[in-house]
Amino acid sequence: MAEHLSQSELDYPFKLLEYFNGFRVSKMIFSACELGVFDLLLKSQDALSAQHVAQELGTSMDGMERLLDALVGIEILEVETAQGTALYSSTDVANLYLAKGSAKSLHDMIIYRSQTVYPLWNNLVDAIRSGRNQYEKTFGLPSGHFFQAIYRSEEEMLKFMGIMSCHWVLDGHDVVTAFDLSRFQKVVDLGGCTGALANEMARAYPASSVTVFDLPQVVEAAQKHFKQEDSGVTFQSGDFFSDEIPGADLYVLARVIHDWPEEKCLIGQYLTLLHMCGAIFCNF
Amino acid sequence: MAEHLSQSELDYPFKLLEYFNGFRVSKMIFSACELGVFDLLLKSQDALSAQHVAQELGTSMDGMERLLDALVGIEILEVETAQGTALYSSTDVANLYLAKGSAKSLHDMIIYRSQTVYPLWNNLVDAIRSGRNQYEKTFGLPSGHFFQAIYRSEEEMLKFMGIMSCHWVLDGHDVVTAFDLSRFQKVVDLGGCTGALANEMARAYPASSVTVFDLPQVVEAAQKHFKQEDSGVTFQSGDFFSDEIPGADLYVLARVIHDWPEEKCLIGQYLTLLHMCGAIFCNF
Repeated sequence: MAEHLSQSELDYPFKLLEYFNGFRVSKMIFSACELGVFDLLLKSQDALSAQHVAQELGTSMDGMERLLDALVGIEILEVETAQGTALYSSTDVANLYLAKGSAKSLHDMIIYRSQTVYPLWNNLVDAIRSGRNQYEKTFGLPSGHFFQAIYRSEEEMLKFMGIMSCHWVLDGHDVVTAFDLSRFQKVVDLGGCTGALANEMARAYPASSVTVFDLPQVVEAAQKHFKQEDSGVTFQSGDFFSDEIPGADLYVLARVIHDWPEEKCLIGQYLTLLHMCGAIFCNF
Repeated sequence: MAEHLSQSELDYPFKLLEYFNGFRVSKMIFSACELGVFDLLLKSQDALSAQHVAQELGTSMDGMERLLDALVGIEILEVETAQGTALYSSTDVANLYLAKGSAKSLHDMIIYRSQTVYPLWNNLVDAIRSGRNQYEKTFGLPSGHFFQAIYRSEEEMLKFMGIMSCHWVLDGHDVVTAFDLSRFQKVVDLGGCTGALANEMARAYPASSVTVFDLPQVVEAAQKHFKQEDSGVTFQSGDFFSDEIPGADLYVLARVIHDWPEEKCLIGQYLTLLHMCGAIFCNF
């Protein structure tokens, strides 16, 4: 397997150096997103100079020019020169995925990765040494319970719900249609968060009833802050470790199992559910 | 230019998601390096289980297994299964560039990127807003003078010198032979650090005399901590902004100009040098 990489790399490690610079590429895109570069360029009819972008977004000219040129380098922006001035414009890819309001915007995913995941990964060595998450070292937060840390405030909970929703913008339809699930009349999405996957499920299987089961504060925020399409999805509040779980023909556990230690997944509701219905649709 | 990326990305943003994960790929490699994974696998005659690696390096089994699998995923390690146990071994690429003692080791570059550059880039948004480096926000260090921060202790200075040396391990020979410089009898490498490039120069042009000119503490550390080959390179201490610069036919300014604000580069020794000799070999 590795010969594939080795052969070309032994003379000069192009790919390896790309890997070493991966964090820079991530942060360039994340930072442009956080500063509003893609939103401004989408809104603008004309290509804009670095000076114009810097003024509109309140940044240094030098820093903005470097950022824009770097984004041109990875083909996320375009540049043309008019009368000696470089003028930057967006690409279809940036407009579709990186601008804030677009149909397939990954903006929330980016903000979460930039502000939460990137700093956490700075402590990866400690994570591997200890086998524990690094919320305490990174943010000074109690790290025993993962959700205690990420749901520490409404603002943080909304950020996390945003990234969860983003995943299904990209993959939701493909996931729910990978198998024919039409024979399941009553579907419950355990830890279904914003209802993004449940909505995809309801759209793909209009004859089924789909319920999102999640913690009370999550259900409240989902209905208040995230667009609920007219897909007939209902919400029910509860803790799937301690409360009674509504009956169903199919339980969905999507991006849920990986949050908990193995013993909790095996001994807890997971097995109970298998007894109850015999059908679980898992996406770890 | 950007159409190239756009066409394939509009249906599904594979490349974009790769960019979003770039920081994870960087940190996986960096962390394996910091933990000594590549050194252990190079030393070992046999492929090793995750448990064996974890025990030898004093890490959690769970964390190490995930790290090793991830490195197999990007083809930097190899895996085979024997009697139900996954056994990991290194690749030629990892042995050549990622292990500590190898001829082309990039170990020092990796440590510096992981421990200094990665956290600095966490504050890229602030850097672009302010147009300033982020040593203060990241490490609580005075950030007015770049070298005040990076030369704050001998340990930090040696790390920085290590990364400078690494660059020339890869590119030094190609850079000094890109042009025929044999007509220059006396070469002075200003800010020549460990002498890595000067050594390449002396090897490529054995008839020339090559001198490294750098700050006293750098010259001392270069001779004490970095292997000086028998290439005839000499060292001279001084500050190229304030001290007299030795006469030469060719001055080398390699990875130096970019450290200083434009006015300092233009008004300072840069112009003086042009008057003195008319030949500067710059690699920004």
